[in-house]
Amino acid sequence: MALETKATITTFGGRFLKLSHSSSTTSTPMNFTVFIPPGASSSKPAPVLIYLSGLTCTPDNVTEKGFLHAHASKLGLALLYPDTSPRGTDLPGEHDSWDFGSAASFYIDATKEPYKKHYQMESYVTKELPELVFSEFKELDKTKVSIAGHSMGGHGALTLYLKNPGMYKSVSAWAPIANPSQCPWGEKAFGGYIGDDKAAWKKHDATELVKSWKNGPLKALIDVGTGDNFYKQKQLLPENFEAAVKEAGVEDVTVRYQDGYDHSYFFISTFGEDHVKHAAKHLGLL
Amino acid sequence: MALETKATITTFGGRFLKLSHSSSTTSTPMNFTVFIPPGASSSKPAPVLIYLSGLTCTPDNVTEKGFLHAHASKLGLALLYPDTSPRGTDLPGEHDSWDFGSAASFYIDATKEPYKKHYQMESYVTKELPELVFSEFKELDKTKVSIAGHSMGGHGALTLYLKNPGMYKSVSAWAPIANPSQCPWGEKAFGGYIGDDKAAWKKHDATELVKSWKNGPLKALIDVGTGDNFYKQKQLLPENFEAAVKEAGVEDVTVRYQDGYDHSYFFISTFGEDHVKHAAKHLGLL
Repeated sequence: MALETKATITTFGGRFLKLSHSSSTTSTPMNFTVFIPPGASSSKPAPVLIYLSGLTCTPDNVTEKGFLHAHASKLGLALLYPDTSPRGTDLPGEHDSWDFGSAASFYIDATKEPYKKHYQMESYVTKELPELVFSEFKELDKTKVSIAGHSMGGHGALTLYLKNPGMYKSVSAWAPIANPSQCPWGEKAFGGYIGDDKAAWKKHDATELVKSWKNGPLKALIDVGTGDNFYKQKQLLPENFEAAVKEAGVEDVTVRYQDGYDHSYFFISTFGEDHVKHAAKHLGLL
Repeated sequence: MALETKATITTFGGRFLKLSHSSSTTSTPMNFTVFIPPGASSSKPAPVLIYLSGLTCTPDNVTEKGFLHAHASKLGLALLYPDTSPRGTDLPGEHDSWDFGSAASFYIDATKEPYKKHYQMESYVTKELPELVFSEFKELDKTKVSIAGHSMGGHGALTLYLKNPGMYKSVSAWAPIANPSQCPWGEKAFGGYIGDDKAAWKKHDATELVKSWKNGPLKALIDVGTGDNFYKQKQLLPENFEAAVKEAGVEDVTVRYQDGYDHSYFFISTFGEDHVKHAAKHLGLL
C-alpha cells in the first residue's frame, strides 16, 4: 500500500498530487491524483468529491481540462481522481479497443476470465482506495464524501452511489452512460467482464438500480449536452434513467439538457462549477 | 484570406471556433482560434484579448487548459489565440528543436534566410490577423483590444505592446521571457531569425524597449511562479525588466511572484481570472 508521490503541483492555492501505489485489489500498480484545497488540515479536514473519468482517460485529463479545482478551492473541497482501469497488465484483448479493457473498466468487479483477477475496480474505488487515502491524508474528511463522473465515469458514479446507500452524500454526472445494458458500449463491457448473463448486468446499470431505490431523495444532478454525438447515438440514454426515476417515484433528481454542448471537456468545464457546488451543498460547505 | 472553420464548440455559453486561412504575410496556412462570449453582436461588439502562447504550443493548449473562457464569458470579453509559428513548411532546422523554428517564432519578423520568407509573425499578429478577424467577425470590437501571453507569448505580448503604443489597451504576461537578449532561449531565437547584430535584438526585447517608453502608465500585469524551473534557470529574467521599469520611472507595472507555482497551465489557469479582469478593466468591461 506504500504511496509513491510522482508530482506535487501548486494550483489554485492548494496542492495537487500525482500518486501511485501497488493495489492488493487489482494486483497491479494503480495511479490516482488528489487536490487538497488551501486551509485543509487534520484539525479541519476537507470533504472529498471523488471524480470518475470516462473512456480513454487517465486522471490527468480532467485535472488539466476540467477546472474543478478553481471552484473546489474557493469552497474548501478536496478532489480524488481514481484511474479508469488497472495498468501494467497485458490480458488478451485488453489494449485492442478504446472502449474495453485498459481505460475502460466501467468501475465494476469483473467475474469472467481473464479479467477477474485484475479488473476489480468497484472494490478498488469503494474500499481500498478510500482506505488508503484517508489513512495517508489526515487533512481529508472520511465522513464527508460525494461522487461524480463523466460518461463511463458518470455510469460509475451513479451505480456506486445507488449500490452503496450512505457511502456518498450526493452524486452528479456529466453525460453518463445511464442505461449500459441497452447500449453498445455497455453490452461490450458487461459481456467481456461479466459474461452473457444479462440478469447480472442489471446490478451494474443505473436505470435498473434506481428502480429499487428506497433511501429517500437521490440528491442527483445530471447534465447532458444536446450536441453530444454519443447522446445522439443512444450510448448514454439519460431518458431511460429519467423514465425509471419517474416510474419509481424517486425524488431530487435533476437532469438538464444543455443546448448545443458536446461530450468534451469544454462541456465538463462549463458545468463544473454547478457540479462542485452540488457536492459542496450536500457536504455541508454551502 | 478565406477562412475555413474547422470546429465550432459551445463552451461557457459562448462559441469557440477553430479556424484556418492562407496567410499572405507568412505565405503559409495559419491556424487560430476565437472565443466569442454570449451576448456579443454587431450592435454590441465584444472587446478582444489576444493571447499569445508559449514554446511548443498550438492555440489548443491554452483553450483546453487555461480556463480563460470561464472568466471572459462572465465579463463579455472575446479571446483571440494566434498560433505560435507558421505551419506546413520544412526549412533547414525548423523542426529540429522545441525552442526554435516551428512553435517557437518569438513573434518577430525574421530578417535572416531561410526564415524571413515565412517567419513574419510580428506583422501577422499585429496586421493581417486582426484585419481578417475584425472583417469576418462583426461581433468583435476592433477599437478595444488588449494583449497577453505566456512565456514566449509573454515576451510577444510585452514587446508588441511596447512597440505599438495605442494598439492595445493593456498588457499582461504569465512567466514572460522578459529579457530575451540575455537568456539562452532568446539568444538562440534572435541569432537564428535576425543574426549576430545584437543591436537589432534590442528592438525585440521588453527590458530594452521599456527603457524608452514615454506613453504614460504601462497598464501591465506580470505573474511569475517561484517554483518555475525556467525562472530559476534565468530564462525569464523578470527582475531585469523590473529594474529597467524602475530606472525609467515607468508607472503602473505590477510584477507578482507567486509562491511555489511552476511554468505550467496549472499556474496559468490559477491566475487566469486576474489577467482576464486586468484586460477587462482597461477595455471598459469592469
